[in-house]
Amino acid sequence: MPAKSPVLVDLKFDPATVAKSLETAFADRGSINLADPASKGIDLSHVDYALLWKPDADLFERAPNLKVIFSGGAGVDSMMSIAGLPDVPMVRFVDRSLTVRMSEWVVMQCLMHLRDVQGHFRNQRQHVWAPQHGPEAADVTVGVMGLGVLGCDAAAKLKVMGFNAIGWSRSKKEIDGMETFDAGGLDAFLARTDILVGLLPLTPDTTGIYNASLFSKLHRNGPLGKPVFINAGRGKSQVQADIASAVRTGILGGASLDVFAVEPLSADDPLWGLENVIITPHDSAVSDEKALMRHVEEQIARFERGELLQHLVDRSRGY
Amino acid sequence: MPAKSPVLVDLKFDPATVAKSLETAFADRGSINLADPASKGIDLSHVDYALLWKPDADLFERAPNLKVIFSGGAGVDSMMSIAGLPDVPMVRFVDRSLTVRMSEWVVMQCLMHLRDVQGHFRNQRQHVWAPQHGPEAADVTVGVMGLGVLGCDAAAKLKVMGFNAIGWSRSKKEIDGMETFDAGGLDAFLARTDILVGLLPLTPDTTGIYNASLFSKLHRNGPLGKPVFINAGRGKSQVQADIASAVRTGILGGASLDVFAVEPLSADDPLWGLENVIITPHDSAVSDEKALMRHVEEQIARFERGELLQHLVDRSRGY
Repeated sequence: MPAKSPVLVDLKFDPATVAKSLETAFADRGSINLADPASKGIDLSHVDYALLWKPDADLFERAPNLKVIFSGGAGVDSMMSIAGLPDVPMVRFVDRSLTVRMSEWVVMQCLMHLRDVQGHFRNQRQHVWAPQHGPEAADVTVGVMGLGVLGCDAAAKLKVMGFNAIGWSRSKKEIDGMETFDAGGLDAFLARTDILVGLLPLTPDTTGIYNASLFSKLHRNGPLGKPVFINAGRGKSQVQADIASAVRTGILGGASLDVFAVEPLSADDPLWGLENVIITPHDSAVSDEKALMRHVEEQIARFERGELLQHLVDRSRGY
Repeated sequence: MPAKSPVLVDLKFDPATVAKSLETAFADRGSINLADPASKGIDLSHVDYALLWKPDADLFERAPNLKVIFSGGAGVDSMMSIAGLPDVPMVRFVDRSLTVRMSEWVVMQCLMHLRDVQGHFRNQRQHVWAPQHGPEAADVTVGVMGLGVLGCDAAAKLKVMGFNAIGWSRSKKEIDGMETFDAGGLDAFLARTDILVGLLPLTPDTTGIYNASLFSKLHRNGPLGKPVFINAGRGKSQVQADIASAVRTGILGGASLDVFAVEPLSADDPLWGLENVIITPHDSAVSDEKALMRHVEEQIARFERGELLQHLVDRSRGY
């Protein structure tokens, strides 16, 4: 029996964490970590499997015989535009921990806007006792754009917390206990939405989708006064100048942003200092490297047994 | 048929809101609002029912023939020490909205400590991009003290969010899917607890229960580093000097406090300015006056039909 092909790894995560998790992963076949200086210039022409996140621009030239590509995250947009991307199955990383942590962040941000945490903190800094009696969650409609694993989990937990959750996806999805809208229903969806939660994949269709025009269609004079925009999907889906302008002019009452078109967010970006805008440094949910390696091991085993791969990317949709 | 006895109302809430809700409540029998100047010195000897929150010290002398006392909140501690409290049924206010809002606040505070919102805000104020990779909710045990309606609802929602929730009450409660402890198991409960959530009623036994000795028994070196104390029950259950000292010395890693021994919290209290201490002005969950009036109407109707009252206080326990 020929030796098993090692797994090519090019993950632009924290290098030490990746190296550590590779010490015990892929015990039966080994791995080639491109972050390791010893891998420089090594022949990759025989490699069957690659695990990638923001891979090198020449990766697909150097490894032209890949059979399966694994993404290090829930999306694959970081590699779709790289030259020579072969027409082989691409597998997204769907991780229980990543899903749970994303929902922690989304639910927390929705609650923080509902309960005016920023206003409370301002009062606390001034030692001012000023009880607020705002709406309860049931009075507020959270519209979730993107109904994949992350969007569905977040929406279900928002409902448990009492929010009225509705959902939007390009093609209609039927989800028990939640009203959903498709591409043609976008305006109706926005008109109902007090807090917009973005969990869309990045595709040509979703690039710049969160812009001034969209914000202007959100529910006006709702229970929070003004609508709120929350994005934990992809930074390039938002027009950041439009967010800043909408907050300044009162089209938006606030925002929570974990992702940005260019990261890290520049220290002189106006978004850092805007009232009621909460910035987190793309740490809403990170891939757990150990879980990622286990997932890739499982999928390779399925592939080599001739079973169907899971969480396959649909190239025509781009996610 | 004699005229129905009006409902005596002495609610130290926002006077305008109480007056407004009384315009439409108790249509069949009317009400006497002690906050109304016209009620000054009025004869209350014929009154059957009283709806009270922090009532006047002479209330029970003036109204000696009460048949049922209704509390304006979930607790009755505001009237237990008032002279002349008659030995008649006392009904607590259990309100869907109050329960939902309390759980919003509790879950939000737990998530804010889990996700180090204070640290993120400090970084944001300095325009610093510094991703954090802390534990997920499943790594953290939230110990809920007090397993009434509020404690059970909060614990159930904390579990949905992924936290490991355990519960404590003086007498053992069996709750599906949650490990619980009773009086004798307090130390074992505290030793497991990373985030302590206080939702206890105020009784002689619970006065000052959250003190230095209790904080020192919480889980050391847990996933958050240091344990966190959250109180949304009663202010007199906590020893505030001990909280401040425990935060300063690192016995506690942080706290969220909505209630205080004396309210409003004095502007020169050191708790306002302590690192990682979140102060809210007793607005985690407030009684909704309209829901309160409906609840009292329903309970009076039950009483007059000879049915059992609901949410009765057990005098021997004090809640």
